[in-house]
Amino acid sequence: MPELRHDPVQKRWVIIATERANRPQDFIVSSRVDNGEDCPFCPGNEEFTPPDLCRIGGGGSAWKARCVPNKYPALRVEGELERAAAGQYDRMNGIGAHEVIIETPDHHSDLPELSIDDLAAVLGIYRDRILDLSRDIRFKYILIFRNHGAPAGASLSHPHSQLIATPVTPRTVAIELESARQHYLVKERCIFCDIIAQEMQEHRRIVTLDQDYVTWCPYASRLPFEMTVAPRRHSHDFAAMGNDEMVRLARHLRNVMRRMKSGLEDPPYNLMLHTCPAYHLENSRSGYWSTIRMDWHWHIEILPKLSRTAGFEWGTGFYINPTPPEEAAEFLRQVSVDDR
Amino acid sequence: MPELRHDPVQKRWVIIATERANRPQDFIVSSRVDNGEDCPFCPGNEEFTPPDLCRIGGGGSAWKARCVPNKYPALRVEGELERAAAGQYDRMNGIGAHEVIIETPDHHSDLPELSIDDLAAVLGIYRDRILDLSRDIRFKYILIFRNHGAPAGASLSHPHSQLIATPVTPRTVAIELESARQHYLVKERCIFCDIIAQEMQEHRRIVTLDQDYVTWCPYASRLPFEMTVAPRRHSHDFAAMGNDEMVRLARHLRNVMRRMKSGLEDPPYNLMLHTCPAYHLENSRSGYWSTIRMDWHWHIEILPKLSRTAGFEWGTGFYINPTPPEEAAEFLRQVSVDDR
Repeated sequence: MPELRHDPVQKRWVIIATERANRPQDFIVSSRVDNGEDCPFCPGNEEFTPPDLCRIGGGGSAWKARCVPNKYPALRVEGELERAAAGQYDRMNGIGAHEVIIETPDHHSDLPELSIDDLAAVLGIYRDRILDLSRDIRFKYILIFRNHGAPAGASLSHPHSQLIATPVTPRTVAIELESARQHYLVKERCIFCDIIAQEMQEHRRIVTLDQDYVTWCPYASRLPFEMTVAPRRHSHDFAAMGNDEMVRLARHLRNVMRRMKSGLEDPPYNLMLHTCPAYHLENSRSGYWSTIRMDWHWHIEILPKLSRTAGFEWGTGFYINPTPPEEAAEFLRQVSVDDR
Repeated sequence: MPELRHDPVQKRWVIIATERANRPQDFIVSSRVDNGEDCPFCPGNEEFTPPDLCRIGGGGSAWKARCVPNKYPALRVEGELERAAAGQYDRMNGIGAHEVIIETPDHHSDLPELSIDDLAAVLGIYRDRILDLSRDIRFKYILIFRNHGAPAGASLSHPHSQLIATPVTPRTVAIELESARQHYLVKERCIFCDIIAQEMQEHRRIVTLDQDYVTWCPYASRLPFEMTVAPRRHSHDFAAMGNDEMVRLARHLRNVMRRMKSGLEDPPYNLMLHTCPAYHLENSRSGYWSTIRMDWHWHIEILPKLSRTAGFEWGTGFYINPTPPEEAAEFLRQVSVDDR
């Protein structure tokens, strides 16, 4: 059983994933090569993954997208959450969920090549899995993320996203939630709505916008060409979106991904969806979450991995970004994109 | 002039280093190759770096180690600190210091190959530069760090460390300082002393220890084979160490570096020194810093880069570590090291 451990100085949880255990010698050999043969995510190889949690398309190997439990999960879905002290430290058994969303049967395809409808269906799987797992009160937060390219941590090249449900609210999300709450308590306005208003007015950091969504390079971008995607209208809950909104988001997101892929020559990247805490969905009448509908605003962060983080970043939590977001946005705005 | 920018949601400062500016096309080409020719850090090439801030050894090219300003600094040392709002955001001009400590004239050598005395002299440069820059009240924190290997962000392979002085306390350090302060306020004990006592008692995560220093794999290690080095006796200020203590630290640190290099086959890594804030040294009688002598404990973090951080880590601040620190420590303890 994996274990969650808390550092009392750095105030951070880590997952010690003993069952994925790599022994010291495993780290010395370089990472495995994925040549597209024997891919467990390709049609016909369904027996190499656990059974579907959900799928789009037909039975057998005739699916268009499917979600399966991760065969090598970082957290385990079975069991009760057990919390304990360990001297100065704190631990929890590694209860959670770890799923894989296989986005297309085509090994050599990629998210930006999907049709709008197929991409909307993938986003619909995100929503449906969040809704399903939110009913489990052991889970505080559900993160959906995507690693593209080996430098961004992808170990399999077949297009896929991942979902991890955690029994604690992760520190990064907790800081964002707290900032949004404090802003709302003083101003009775959503901090993201305020930021979007400022970005639309200044326009210098906008990458693209349409009636419903806006993408910009954040003022304090950590990495070159970092982008944030958010709905223009206030919305705290990604999973509350209907199918029509999913289609409009798919159109916007595909445009953004195509700009990035074409302009930056298919860079490695990480993509993360920050929606409201799972806990909220089942506890929206409790005190703590009573303002989250007003103060939180879901968003997607896209982090191209064009440079490497080094000792300075690890030692400070600071980032040195050599590309001003104004220049990054101007470059990405000018990439011509075929939206068909 | 570079610029410091603050993100109001993630509560993080970034350095937008416009003068190192990489234009979009620079990122598409892969990183430069360093073949050891025309190395600006090699003896005889002193004209390719700014003049020495300090040196060990003889004049001209007869030095054993030297410290120079970074030719492409992330922060600029000239000018007054100017703070301003930018709508929702905050900015500061990029005042700071960015220096390079060239640790040996031998391009193909490495820290673990230095003699104890030469390594102690390098640590003495760390101390002297911290003491010198601490007199500048514009600087809140001075971080010394080392990137080894391209996957850890090193762009030049000649052995060197870096120093960055920042006009704000970095978030990572601020969280550590605050944890230590809260612990002290309740318990009147140093949190690091408590942790060291527990580690020495349990012994399972100890890598090596001697009369003065101890190295262990932290209970909640973020990465496989992560290590913390700290003095066994309480000490808040790395720069308060005398030359004898530097020699003892050099002996301990070289042993640790040799274990890592030999056991893990010269892995890429980041090393960071977390000493007390620079501000303290000039303001130790002011209220805010009055307890720092008691509550802070300097330490060195060593992070081998054997795995890659991916979307989950970026989206949560959580880490998934496949190697329990107990196993990592046992492995590193068993590496045989020649201390001559």
